[in-house]
Amino acid sequence: MLTKQLSPVSFPGESQALVEVCRFLGERGWAPATGGNFSVRLDEGHCLITQSGCDKSRLTVDDLMVCDLHGNALDLALRPSAEVGLHARLYRVDSGVGAVLHTHSVVSTVLSRATKGDLVLQGFEMQKSLTGNRSHEQAITIAIFDNDQDIAALAGRVQQRWPAAGASPDTLTQPGFLVRGHGLYAWGKDLSEARRHVEGFEFLFACAWQEILAARMAGV
Amino acid sequence: MLTKQLSPVSFPGESQALVEVCRFLGERGWAPATGGNFSVRLDEGHCLITQSGCDKSRLTVDDLMVCDLHGNALDLALRPSAEVGLHARLYRVDSGVGAVLHTHSVVSTVLSRATKGDLVLQGFEMQKSLTGNRSHEQAITIAIFDNDQDIAALAGRVQQRWPAAGASPDTLTQPGFLVRGHGLYAWGKDLSEARRHVEGFEFLFACAWQEILAARMAGV
Amino acid sequence: MLTKQLSPVSFPGESQALVEVCRFLGERGWAPATGGNFSVRLDEGHCLITQSGCDKSRLTVDDLMVCDLHGNALDLALRPSAEVGLHARLYRVDSGVGAVLHTHSVVSTVLSRATKGDLVLQGFEMQKSLTGNRSHEQAITIAIFDNDQDIAALAGRVQQRWPAAGASPDTLTQPGFLVRGHGLYAWGKDLSEARRHVEGFEFLFACAWQEILAARMAGV
Amino acid sequence: MLTKQLSPVSFPGESQALVEVCRFLGERGWAPATGGNFSVRLDEGHCLITQSGCDKSRLTVDDLMVCDLHGNALDLALRPSAEVGLHARLYRVDSGVGAVLHTHSVVSTVLSRATKGDLVLQGFEMQKSLTGNRSHEQAITIAIFDNDQDIAALAGRVQQRWPAAGASPDTLTQPGFLVRGHGLYAWGKDLSEARRHVEGFEFLFACAWQEILAARMAGV
Repeated sequence: MLTKQLSPVSFPGESQALVEVCRFLGERGWAPATGGNFSVRLDEGHCLITQSGCDKSRLTVDDLMVCDLHGNALDLALRPSAEVGLHARLYRVDSGVGAVLHTHSVVSTVLSRATKGDLVLQGFEMQKSLTGNRSHEQAITIAIFDNDQDIAALAGRVQQRWPAAGASPDTLTQPGFLVRGHGLYAWGKDLSEARRHVEGFEFLFACAWQEILAARMAGV
Repeated sequence: MLTKQLSPVSFPGESQALVEVCRFLGERGWAPATGGNFSVRLDEGHCLITQSGCDKSRLTVDDLMVCDLHGNALDLALRPSAEVGLHARLYRVDSGVGAVLHTHSVVSTVLSRATKGDLVLQGFEMQKSLTGNRSHEQAITIAIFDNDQDIAALAGRVQQRWPAAGASPDTLTQPGFLVRGHGLYAWGKDLSEARRHVEGFEFLFACAWQEILAARMAGV
Repeated sequence: MLTKQLSPVSFPGESQALVEVCRFLGERGWAPATGGNFSVRLDEGHCLITQSGCDKSRLTVDDLMVCDLHGNALDLALRPSAEVGLHARLYRVDSGVGAVLHTHSVVSTVLSRATKGDLVLQGFEMQKSLTGNRSHEQAITIAIFDNDQDIAALAGRVQQRWPAAGASPDTLTQPGFLVRGHGLYAWGKDLSEARRHVEGFEFLFACAWQEILAARMAGV
Repeated sequence: MLTKQLSPVSFPGESQALVEVCRFLGERGWAPATGGNFSVRLDEGHCLITQSGCDKSRLTVDDLMVCDLHGNALDLALRPSAEVGLHARLYRVDSGVGAVLHTHSVVSTVLSRATKGDLVLQGFEMQKSLTGNRSHEQAITIAIFDNDQDIAALAGRVQQRWPAAGASPDTLTQPGFLVRGHGLYAWGKDLSEARRHVEGFEFLFACAWQEILAARMAGV
């Protein structure tokens, strides 16, 4: 099954773009301690993803691997991280997902732990950095899932809330979600959009955390 | 109407200086998620401005465009961001405005949301970084406008408070203002002064936010 | 006793790797004011360690020295820092310790001062960055020792809690500990693992400090 | 009076070292908005100092000037900043002062405003980064002077507290002081020591500010 075409060197454009996004996010401190997983879709059945355990701020093409959309490595010598399963699920359930970025920041960690249920934000111009939002005036809901070491179970819970014909009040409406005490998953039609979403989410989370501090201080 | 003289390459000095300021501000995290707009006056009828949607920390001359002072692109193939209208208005109402920088920072966002009316500061040496202020002792007022997706309406409200013959208590007295939940607009006679004003304002906002946290904690 | 083999230039691989780790940690602000000590094991009787008083963010191989595992410099012209004694002790008591990194951060300083006894954390995915932890669900204990200018005495107290046959409730269970008002000592089987531990600990400390602020604000 | 020997190019070693320190401090955000002044002693009657109004993070040798120890520029074409007078005073009153660094940080600004009288710190290992302190156990006092646009008056108040034969309880005991709402002046026998003092002071100020937030939150 392993062919030369399914190693990262066969996709120099995607590989280079993914490496650049990883370094950008790594330098901002959003992938510390070799954490985080970053991927880009290659075709209807494969994605390119970071191998587990590498330092994201100095990533090279050699740290990437090709997986199918069930989370299996094409190069059997490589062991994908468990979280590949969640990336693969997002690509599988929605052909519009072109890139998935999973980051760990201090602020996304503490904000998700301090928030019961989902996060609701309103009145921030930065909401418009998330595709589909055109005004600061609407309240937006960012889903928070409880953390789970069973990635397949977590992926299942995400899939249940994925936009579909019979949309429910629980349906995800933003291009990302938080995992409580863990971090952010964000996506986009391509790497540029996914990266803009990460930056927009992280900005909003930083604002929300400051306002939690200020509100609690005020006795609210 | 489109002529070679009205593309950015015809203004290599201004283009290079604007690119450097954008990168400086972008690297400080004040233009995340492709946000922010940055411009410099070219003459009595035109300005050079960043195109919308580009990453400010890695901007190049190709990401710039020339607009007239009604916010219209000279190169009809390019679509200016809506906020060009506010830059253009400032150049039009005041011939002393040589550069306009619009940034998004976490602290300007949360501070403007936490402050009713305008922001009043006193006792900071850094006030002197804003042209026209010579001592830490005077109280200064930094206007905060409510955010509005209608940029022309917002520009109109700014223009009503612009310094003029019949100055009122509402008249803007500092080289910048906040838009609530959105960010900072700052200007100067040239790019260097405008950039110094951004740095001075952001420093003062960071101080003011820390003091809000400390004061609320103290039950004030 | 001093031989050419026992100067840093005899260990170019270890020297280069140690310099890179120091610069990485220095650039993050975790070794300010020439603070911090960083070492890697060379063999069963020696380690390579930073000389005292050098700026870690611009370290070179010339700033390193070789010590035996009693903390004595092999090159008698060099004076090791007092804290070499603690590094040496860790290498001596455990042959599995391959690198020791001692950092100073604002957050490790204030968190250790605000915490009585040891630090207990639970529910953070980042706990898994510390070797031996496989889930966010278990509570982990990070020891905090009171600061002491007598490094031998401090080393003795650390050694008393080192994992051994007759493990007690006090036994260290994580690859690092805090010194109150001082900073972090972390180790690993090699430099890469030790560095990942520093990044993981610092992330967890930053989260814990934010939660202390939020909890105190909430009147907890 | 102006001679070739008294321009910065005559002192290439001192000029280069001063430029490097300025860039280091500028990149850390401690000299924003062209703020701050940085100098090194040349001999018993002169110092080399940054000109006013230049961006410290991209300083070059051309941004330096030579002044006598009454604050007068040797090159009459250059206008020294008012604060040169305070640098000059320190060099004049104490031949052991070899370099003076004046920084502006958010934390030194808000901490000095929140503290009545002088700042007292105890229990921080980082106290040892300030020459003369050998243990975390002693309480240290860092003087805070009220800000004053009259630099000569401010310098006079500093001189009154300078260590001398008849030392009083008010005598300065640390190699630096705060100006309220303004920033830090730190010095050392040479540029390296002065820079280490700036880093040590800023670290201690950051800790102290966090502890003020936490203490106020706890109702203390």
